[in-house]
Amino acid sequence: MDSAQLDQFIHGKRVTFEGSKSSTREFARHLDASDPLASFRKEFLIPSKADLKDPHPEAKPVEKCNDPSDPCIYFCGNSLGLQPKNTQTLIAEELRIWATRGVQGHFNHPLSRPWVSAPEEVNTHMANVVGALPEEVSVMGTLTANIHTLLASFYKPEVTKKGRYKIIIEGKAFPSDHYAVESQIEWHGLDPKDALVTIFPEGDRKVLTTDQICRVIDENASTTAVLWLSGVQYYTGQAFDIKAITRHAQNKGILVGWDLAHAVGNILLELHEWGVDFAAWCTYKYLSSGPGGIAGIFVHEKHASPERHRLAGWWGHDKASRFTMDNVFRPMPGAAGYQMSNPSILDIAALLSSLSLYSKATMSAIRTKSVQMTGYLDYLLHSQFEPYDPKPFEIITPQNPASRGAQLSLIFREGLMMQVFDGLQERGIIVDERKPDVIRAAPLPLYNTFEEVWDFVQALKEAIDDASKGG
Amino acid sequence: MDSAQLDQFIHGKRVTFEGSKSSTREFARHLDASDPLASFRKEFLIPSKADLKDPHPEAKPVEKCNDPSDPCIYFCGNSLGLQPKNTQTLIAEELRIWATRGVQGHFNHPLSRPWVSAPEEVNTHMANVVGALPEEVSVMGTLTANIHTLLASFYKPEVTKKGRYKIIIEGKAFPSDHYAVESQIEWHGLDPKDALVTIFPEGDRKVLTTDQICRVIDENASTTAVLWLSGVQYYTGQAFDIKAITRHAQNKGILVGWDLAHAVGNILLELHEWGVDFAAWCTYKYLSSGPGGIAGIFVHEKHASPERHRLAGWWGHDKASRFTMDNVFRPMPGAAGYQMSNPSILDIAALLSSLSLYSKATMSAIRTKSVQMTGYLDYLLHSQFEPYDPKPFEIITPQNPASRGAQLSLIFREGLMMQVFDGLQERGIIVDERKPDVIRAAPLPLYNTFEEVWDFVQALKEAIDDASKGG
Ligand SMILES: Cc1ncc(COP(=O)(O)O)c(C=O)c1O
Ligand SMILES: Cc1ncc(COP(=O)(O)O)c(C=O)c1O
Repeated sequence: MDSAQLDQFIHGKRVTFEGSKSSTREFARHLDASDPLASFRKEFLIPSKADLKDPHPEAKPVEKCNDPSDPCIYFCGNSLGLQPKNTQTLIAEELRIWATRGVQGHFNHPLSRPWVSAPEEVNTHMANVVGALPEEVSVMGTLTANIHTLLASFYKPEVTKKGRYKIIIEGKAFPSDHYAVESQIEWHGLDPKDALVTIFPEGDRKVLTTDQICRVIDENASTTAVLWLSGVQYYTGQAFDIKAITRHAQNKGILVGWDLAHAVGNILLELHEWGVDFAAWCTYKYLSSGPGGIAGIFVHEKHASPERHRLAGWWGHDKASRFTMDNVFRPMPGAAGYQMSNPSILDIAALLSSLSLYSKATMSAIRTKSVQMTGYLDYLLHSQFEPYDPKPFEIITPQNPASRGAQLSLIFREGLMMQVFDGLQERGIIVDERKPDVIRAAPLPLYNTFEEVWDFVQALKEAIDDASKGG
Repeated sequence: MDSAQLDQFIHGKRVTFEGSKSSTREFARHLDASDPLASFRKEFLIPSKADLKDPHPEAKPVEKCNDPSDPCIYFCGNSLGLQPKNTQTLIAEELRIWATRGVQGHFNHPLSRPWVSAPEEVNTHMANVVGALPEEVSVMGTLTANIHTLLASFYKPEVTKKGRYKIIIEGKAFPSDHYAVESQIEWHGLDPKDALVTIFPEGDRKVLTTDQICRVIDENASTTAVLWLSGVQYYTGQAFDIKAITRHAQNKGILVGWDLAHAVGNILLELHEWGVDFAAWCTYKYLSSGPGGIAGIFVHEKHASPERHRLAGWWGHDKASRFTMDNVFRPMPGAAGYQMSNPSILDIAALLSSLSLYSKATMSAIRTKSVQMTGYLDYLLHSQFEPYDPKPFEIITPQNPASRGAQLSLIFREGLMMQVFDGLQERGIIVDERKPDVIRAAPLPLYNTFEEVWDFVQALKEAIDDASKGG
């Protein structure tokens, strides 16, 4: 892909890939051949088609697993990222150190990753991924639990004075966010019917616009305490304009937090620069830390003060006196002061493994490839399904690359989706379905190829043709 | 040990081990020979003395690690339990399934441990360990975070009416508990100076008595909302009379919760039977789940109602409709309804590995051996240091086995402790120190032996003699 094409992408134009070859597999191979991140694919364990069919892949000799000549097409890294090859090694190291040092691993760690300060190395990588100062980031807990931890500190409604007390969220927020925010409101004895403002797409739009969000902010400007949105919407794949929305809300005196579950490791983030107040994310999606992997939080430098109230724990206590045990809480400044408990060393090892790859590749290269790859997918879906009437699906993810990440969400004609999903699965393609009608597909820059995008679209055509015949 | 001796133990008498041989290593070996749990030791990876000295044990061939002919004496399972041999296997299985199935492991798991309901098997074991119904227990999060989760649901101070608003804790509570409770009080806008009641030992006592605790409860009977104590005190090793204290406080209308960090897997618990309202614990100590392993909570059946307010998350949502995404929170009844996030599968695998051993051994056999072992340690410490004047240390843990678990806490004459600690370490003995003066030693029933108790006391004598000479 040349730089003019990339430029077109970035400015929201659908690139047409001039030339008769642009819809061929050869063209896809050509794109792969000039991909500077191509070498990262071999750092991941990609399930093979045989693995997926094997009733007991865990019982096969390891060298029979993940056969690189028979890979499945895994477009589901937006749900659970693939495993870096090095993860097993880093976990085995920690297990060995636990086995041979016992409790001494907390302080005396042969690989200089003493458990007592285990998140530090990981935090540095993480800060790069989200565009933060290292002190603004802390690897800890799990996403929903962290949302509660942050809201307990940042959502301080003026309950009696009826000043600022509302929280604005998306109408179709991820359920856990909805439940978390609602239960925080109830915790304060407030009624979500009044205190929870939800924004739904207008008219027959599938997504929200920055304008609309800003309008809702304006309408609730004097009564809103917190705005809590997702950076990239899990269902539609829409990427919000974090910078503009944050600034708009902050100008009205509102604190702004972001759920970055689908944004981290996916789009470019500059949380510090943008002045985001706080944020939380999981790492098992784009960041490949494994099922239920340890999560992350961001607390902007401007809120670093130890004076800020929070739900406290000893792991957030000033490290020098953490073991003094005088029971006077002195939090570390910044995000570290929000830690509660000593973290899972196995989970941190897994995250360290994958974040090392992200650091090496750099987010800017990852995002560049992602824009190309998803743009190519978009191009093929449009050009290949041009002749279809009626259209089997519609892409609900915004067209403009600035308004989306890796994922495209396809909404299918009624009754078609599950058959298509099964058809893809039969062809060794893993995507994600959301009943009743949506398939989400996300080619990921570190382990997917342009050729896979091409193969995916062919398989999709076959699956749709079969389903249409069948139905 | 005969049953009369055991009976003496259990009634708080120091057993004298009649006969001239009772202070010999042969006697210790005799106790090991008749130990019904002896076979469990080989299920654990015990650091060898060579391992402890090796600067890079993780780089040695695995068969050179944990040499069973050269074991260290690990009396630190009260801080970080040793690794079961099977843990690595269970973790490797999950890694392999992630590698070969990707996201499908959530639902389609070849070993019938689908990640989507991963805590269930573990919960069943856990319920046995704490004496609960399976629905009363949930494996989730980390200890301090869970304390917050539980207090957010159970600490509902009558802020305006100045009815019940206080929390009673130990004066020397573990710092994280102190911080957690204090910050919960502050969250409600209350002042800990008024709302936090701390109980310190009276006079020159080192520990609290049930009487004293009940007196403080009585003094604050009408204003106290919650009593939060530790089941076994981390510092003194004292085991509280959970049943009696719970009943006493509940009779005054107080909700009673317990931090079981040092109690779980250590003493016999009957949380359901005793009517405990709620409880939380970690699993990396007595339960050997590894550094920062996943934690557990207990919510009594009587509080199972989905109506109870809590800080909600999608993982606590009714499983049948968890993915329906209609954003109406319908919690599962019981402890499961307190889950927020999908849990770490690596941590659950590690916990499953160790809990399987606890289930097999049974808590009643574990506790029986523990009473014997710690009683034997107590006996040897007293008999062997009888001639010493001044006494190099005093045991601050209660004498009565019903008032302690595996751990004995030794407070040393001023200036002696660190030298003794180092001297023990040089002799391949791992215990835990709390500056300035305390060493905590806990022989654990599943992997320690009576002979190790004997060896420990000999090494302690040598270390003390050296330190006294040196100083
Ligand atoms: C009694 C007690 N409470 C709380 C904690 C804090 O545990 P975590 O770091 O898992 O939250 C500990 C840790 O040792 C403890 O012993
Ligand atoms: C946007 C968003 N928020 C919250 C969650 C809940 O995550 P967790 O189970 O890790 O708390 C998810 C999980 O997929 C998510 O995508």
